Amino acid sequence: MRYWEDFRVGEVTEVGPVTVTEDEIVEFATKYDPQPFHVDPEAAKESIFGGLVASGWQTAALFMGMFVQKVLRHSASLGSPGVEAIRWTAPVRPGDTLRGRSVVTDVLPSSKDPRRGTVISTHEVSNQDGVVVMRLTTRGFFARRS
Amino acid sequence: MRYWEDFRVGEVTEVGPVTVTEDEIVEFATKYDPQPFHVDPEAAKESIFGGLVASGWQTAALFMGMFVQKVLRHSASLGSPGVEAIRWTAPVRPGDTLRGRSVVTDVLPSSKDPRRGTVISTHEVSNQDGVVVMRLTTRGFFARRS
Repeated sequence: MRYWEDFRVGEVTEVGPVTVTEDEIVEFATKYDPQPFHVDPEAAKESIFGGLVASGWQTAALFMGMFVQKVLRHSASLGSPGVEAIRWTAPVRPGDTLRGRSVVTDVLPSSKDPRRGTVISTHEVSNQDGVVVMRLTTRGFFARRS
Repeated sequence: MRYWEDFRVGEVTEVGPVTVTEDEIVEFATKYDPQPFHVDPEAAKESIFGGLVASGWQTAALFMGMFVQKVLRHSASLGSPGVEAIRWTAPVRPGDTLRGRSVVTDVLPSSKDPRRGTVISTHEVSNQDGVVVMRLTTRGFFARRS
C-alpha cells in the first residue's frame, strides 16, 4: 500500500495496455457524447475524422482505468480535486491499443489537512503505433502514513 | 445549425437535467475507475466520502451528454483539442440530478485553417441543491459558414 510519502518526483510508471472496440466506442458515446463521428460509422466516414473515433472523455476514462489498476488500487487514494490541460492530440479509432506513461512532477503536503497530501502527475497516452493520443496533468489526494 | 460565427462571447446556455443512479455509478466505475468509493457501497461508507460517489470522469461525461443534446447536436462541431482545469468541487451521489450552465468566454478564428474557428466556454455543473459539483473550461472547433 503506497501513501503520500511514497511518491517521488520524477518517478515514472507505465500503465496498460487496453484495447477499445467499435462496440465500446459506440456504446460510450451513445450515452455520453452522441456526436455523429462517435456513434455512426457511416456518418463518421464523411466527417473530418474519416471514420469512427472515440469520445475524448472515453479516452480519459480508459486511461483512468489503466491508472487505477496499476497505481491507485495499491495506494491510499482519497480522490482528486481536478485535472489540468487535457489535450486530445490524435484520434482513437476502433481496435486501437492504448498505453500510458505517467511521471510524478510534484508532491505537496496539504496546507489544510495534515493527514493528506497531493501528488501531481503528467500523463501521456499513446496508441500501438506510438502516436500520442492524449496528454493531461492530474492532481491526486493521498493519505499520509501516520 | 449553428456555425462558428453564430457563437457570441457572454452567451449563456443552460443544459440538463440528468439524474444518475447508483447502478449507473457502479457500472461506469467498474469499467473505468474501480476505486472502492466508486464501486462498493459498503466500502464507500468507510471512506472520506461517507458513501458511494460518482467517478469525476463520469460527472464530466454526464455534463458532455447534456451539452451535446442542447448545443453540439445543433452545431457544426468538429471535435475538441482539449479541456482546461477541471475542478471536482463536491461529490456526486446516487440519485443526484445535475444541471449545467455554460458561458462562451472567447471566440477565435483558426490561424491554421480558415474553414474553422474555436469557441472557448466555461461550464458549471450543479446538483439539485444548487451545490456546484464541477467546473471546467472547454475548447471546441466549429466549422465556419463559407
